[in-house]
Amino acid sequence: MKSHTVYRTLETAERREFVRITEDVQAAVDAAGIAEGMALVSAMHITAGVWVNDDEPGIQADALEWLDKLAPPSWKEPANQVAAGLSPDPGDYRHHRGGEDNGDAHLKNLLVHHQVIVPVTEGRLDLGPWQAIFYTEFDGRRAKRLVIKVLGE
Amino acid sequence: MKSHTVYRTLETAERREFVRITEDVQAAVDAAGIAEGMALVSAMHITAGVWVNDDEPGIQADALEWLDKLAPPSWKEPANQVAAGLSPDPGDYRHHRGGEDNGDAHLKNLLVHHQVIVPVTEGRLDLGPWQAIFYTEFDGRRAKRLVIKVLGE
Amino acid sequence: MKSHTVYRTLETAERREFVRITEDVQAAVDAAGIAEGMALVSAMHITAGVWVNDDEPGIQADALEWLDKLAPPSWKEPANQVAAGLSPDPGDYRHHRGGEDNGDAHLKNLLVHHQVIVPVTEGRLDLGPWQAIFYTEFDGRRAKRLVIKVLGE
Repeated sequence: MKSHTVYRTLETAERREFVRITEDVQAAVDAAGIAEGMALVSAMHITAGVWVNDDEPGIQADALEWLDKLAPPSWKEPANQVAAGLSPDPGDYRHHRGGEDNGDAHLKNLLVHHQVIVPVTEGRLDLGPWQAIFYTEFDGRRAKRLVIKVLGE
Repeated sequence: MKSHTVYRTLETAERREFVRITEDVQAAVDAAGIAEGMALVSAMHITAGVWVNDDEPGIQADALEWLDKLAPPSWKEPANQVAAGLSPDPGDYRHHRGGEDNGDAHLKNLLVHHQVIVPVTEGRLDLGPWQAIFYTEFDGRRAKRLVIKVLGE
Repeated sequence: MKSHTVYRTLETAERREFVRITEDVQAAVDAAGIAEGMALVSAMHITAGVWVNDDEPGIQADALEWLDKLAPPSWKEPANQVAAGLSPDPGDYRHHRGGEDNGDAHLKNLLVHHQVIVPVTEGRLDLGPWQAIFYTEFDGRRAKRLVIKVLGE
């Protein structure tokens, strides 16, 4: 079994941002020199995720608006009454007692999930035609790490 | 390390449908001839997921009703005021500007997640007594693919 | 390729509880004797999950309050009107027709996801500085099993 590990540091310009990383993951597979196996792609932070979906800006805007309703930030007004009802009842996230303001990003991390495993077949990421891999940042503007671990033969 | 890859094409009769695939995954493990390893089960589309849960029709009906509130389709009336509040604010999903009507299915894919990894021990899927594997279709009635990748020894 | 499988039985004192298992997973990696590979950590029940996040009590209390709004239990009053709107429309979960009362726990399992894969590098879990692994119980007070499967070399 061969293994190859790549760390990538991302520092997004926006607080929340989706960054396409499909090509980074394929490059890690190429460097690993495997034909059959898998690539584990995992955010190393707890306020970011990894998502496989369509590379279509409308979907990303839809997803961000919707995630802000399901897991509302406390640093801006709730989008509507439903978002207000899904906000924390103590008035603010308990997590913010330590001075943080990213409680919502932890919950978005839960919904999006922090990792994916991509199958590798004949040396290529075995994705469907519309599947692209995105790093999903929910508390950016600072250097954060992602690990890509390729295992196979 | 041995590897074995199986593609399955599913075309559901209903737009949304849960299809039990536990036996397909075990068959792939059998064909791989491994004793210890794992089976990666991944939808190759971005409007379907893979879920491990109880094979009990009540749960599936509960889950679908609930997912339609959390990520409301725009091709039918919102179930109630909460579902209306979780619908997109522009009036329709931005993704639909290209002629699609499956924006909700992309968000359901995010919630359900598009893949699972099942441990394989002594040649068998190492699942709990009530765990079954389901392909969860949210935009069906057309041929869609699933990949099962078995790795181990 | 080496493999090593550990089962752990957890019986939480509370109905819902987050149990830190990072050290159990590292112990399984140590016992496997691998340097490079991965650890698959998977709940063997359908009303529990596995979550990688900060070991901070405020986040856990935030997450549980929020999950009770998104996937409301029927054995207590809905937290507010939004939680009432996300409760099942038949008046109770269909799953409860068989005598169960844990329909919400199945939906929380869907949101949290029942498993994670942790990369292993130079014999250590390759986690970020704030990433800890938790077993997330949503219907406890009885013996339930977790499988840790380590694969690598």
